Amino acid sequence: MTTELAILRLVRDDLARVEQKMQAMGEGAYRPLAEAFLHLIGSGGKRLRPALALAAYALFANQASEKVVSLAAAVETLHNATLVHDDLIDGSLLRRGSVTLNATWGKGATVLAGDYLFARAAGFAAETENIRVVQLFADTLRTICEGELRQLFSTHQWRQEKEAYYPRIFAKTASLFASATRSGAILGHASVEQEQALNNYGYHLGMAFQIVDDILDYAGDEAVLGKPVGGDLRQGIVTLPFFYFLQSHPAPEGVLARLEAGDRAGNGMADVVAQVRASAAISQAMDEARDFAARAKANLASFPANAHRTALHDLADFVVARDI
Amino acid sequence: MTTELAILRLVRDDLARVEQKMQAMGEGAYRPLAEAFLHLIGSGGKRLRPALALAAYALFANQASEKVVSLAAAVETLHNATLVHDDLIDGSLLRRGSVTLNATWGKGATVLAGDYLFARAAGFAAETENIRVVQLFADTLRTICEGELRQLFSTHQWRQEKEAYYPRIFAKTASLFASATRSGAILGHASVEQEQALNNYGYHLGMAFQIVDDILDYAGDEAVLGKPVGGDLRQGIVTLPFFYFLQSHPAPEGVLARLEAGDRAGNGMADVVAQVRASAAISQAMDEARDFAARAKANLASFPANAHRTALHDLADFVVARDI
Repeated sequence: MTTELAILRLVRDDLARVEQKMQAMGEGAYRPLAEAFLHLIGSGGKRLRPALALAAYALFANQASEKVVSLAAAVETLHNATLVHDDLIDGSLLRRGSVTLNATWGKGATVLAGDYLFARAAGFAAETENIRVVQLFADTLRTICEGELRQLFSTHQWRQEKEAYYPRIFAKTASLFASATRSGAILGHASVEQEQALNNYGYHLGMAFQIVDDILDYAGDEAVLGKPVGGDLRQGIVTLPFFYFLQSHPAPEGVLARLEAGDRAGNGMADVVAQVRASAAISQAMDEARDFAARAKANLASFPANAHRTALHDLADFVVARDI
Repeated sequence: MTTELAILRLVRDDLARVEQKMQAMGEGAYRPLAEAFLHLIGSGGKRLRPALALAAYALFANQASEKVVSLAAAVETLHNATLVHDDLIDGSLLRRGSVTLNATWGKGATVLAGDYLFARAAGFAAETENIRVVQLFADTLRTICEGELRQLFSTHQWRQEKEAYYPRIFAKTASLFASATRSGAILGHASVEQEQALNNYGYHLGMAFQIVDDILDYAGDEAVLGKPVGGDLRQGIVTLPFFYFLQSHPAPEGVLARLEAGDRAGNGMADVVAQVRASAAISQAMDEARDFAARAKANLASFPANAHRTALHDLADFVVARDI
């Protein structure tokens, strides 16, 4: 826990400015809308993505500019906008222990509230007055949406290739991590090589982060997760532990046939989840996450050693040291 | 019809470039998504909004730049993105005689397809490399979403003030018209006064356009509309003709009580629609639309007389000359 706190502690004052900027969205907005997104913002989240943007920028400048605060607000607001629509799509009623917008508003209002947050995120991105940052944001949102659509259309396709997993988690998670650190570098007037290195850091960190998230879905403590394990498989989403499990299973065809039969009967998942959880697939997937984390760290090598570089370095370690 | 064609004829070649740019979105995109939005784009629409951006720009430059083509594509793509979500919210199965995405895809995929189009619109806006245009776009999307939410939360509120109508149609329609013409001016390096004049032209044109649309919903020919008259009232949306009808009705309280009773019983609309249609409210609303059109035209006075100015001028006349 202390390791994670290092980066958040370093950028704490800047994050407070980001928070203020996001809260200020409520001023002058239509009241029910303002209340809804203040509830959303107020219900927590680690603010890891804006912290990444701020820390990347801090490798180049001593003090956070107004523009990088706008960037960080854009990153977090975009993330929240996608969560609003995700919860609607999944029919989720709770997130971070709070009721979702989807649970209190109707479908139409929830769609529009998400759209509104996309608009605000775009506005914050424009406040950076950097057209490359804006372009990067537009591209990232495109990647996220396309990835979500691919995932939606590939649920319950138990026989898909392991290779399809990587672009999916890039779209879902790593793309925004990479854009956050890369945009921080752009605003910090980084060189082409530095910008690329920070993009790669964010990418590999995001991949590691999502793999660990997918591992926790099988191997986590239900009390900590706040939900039963195996939620992904139950939703028909296949992730890295499942692919490894299948690879080393003596009779993969039997497992697949069983899942397909389970789709028809609406059951039969719990046993597969327990098997994956107890198998070597968990540590195999964890090794791969550690590999991504190591590659994230390698991309920091060319930067001068300072507190922010150390914090980014330690964050990569922390991500793969989460309790499983 | 010939009057409308003047502006579309003038910018026909540029519109073809806009069309090409939008079609090119399909290249490399996830196939089901590409097919969906190519169907959407291919199913028509007058392309009035991109034409406005191109014509406004043409007041300052002889030839459409790549950037103004991007602007026009951004305007039309943003418009289409909002239509995708509108159809989902309204549960509409047909638009422009084609099946909606909502009718063929599920809720989740439709939300994501709309989001994807927002992302592409933002990308096109960024291609203008003009940060003010990007900011204007973000603000316009925010206005549209907030307006839609206000409308959603105010349906079946029969006793609302007439004054609430104007900000609602500004948000719904006039804001994007104004942004289209204003952005064209910005890219054309207009003076502050010229930019303001074109913003005001777009605003007043958009207000006139939406009022006429709302009149047609009562007074139009069902065969031309392709749907029964009175759709707005049936959806619980009150528009200008209804406000005028109520103002001059000898017993407005009776009408309101009847609508409220109808809400409970699920009927009683048809008669009110017929009364509004037959009343002086239609011509009163039309007078107001003409007033907006006249103010749109007045904003063109300071520009040198040329084919594009004439086309913009005539468009304002055309909008209020639509068959009712």
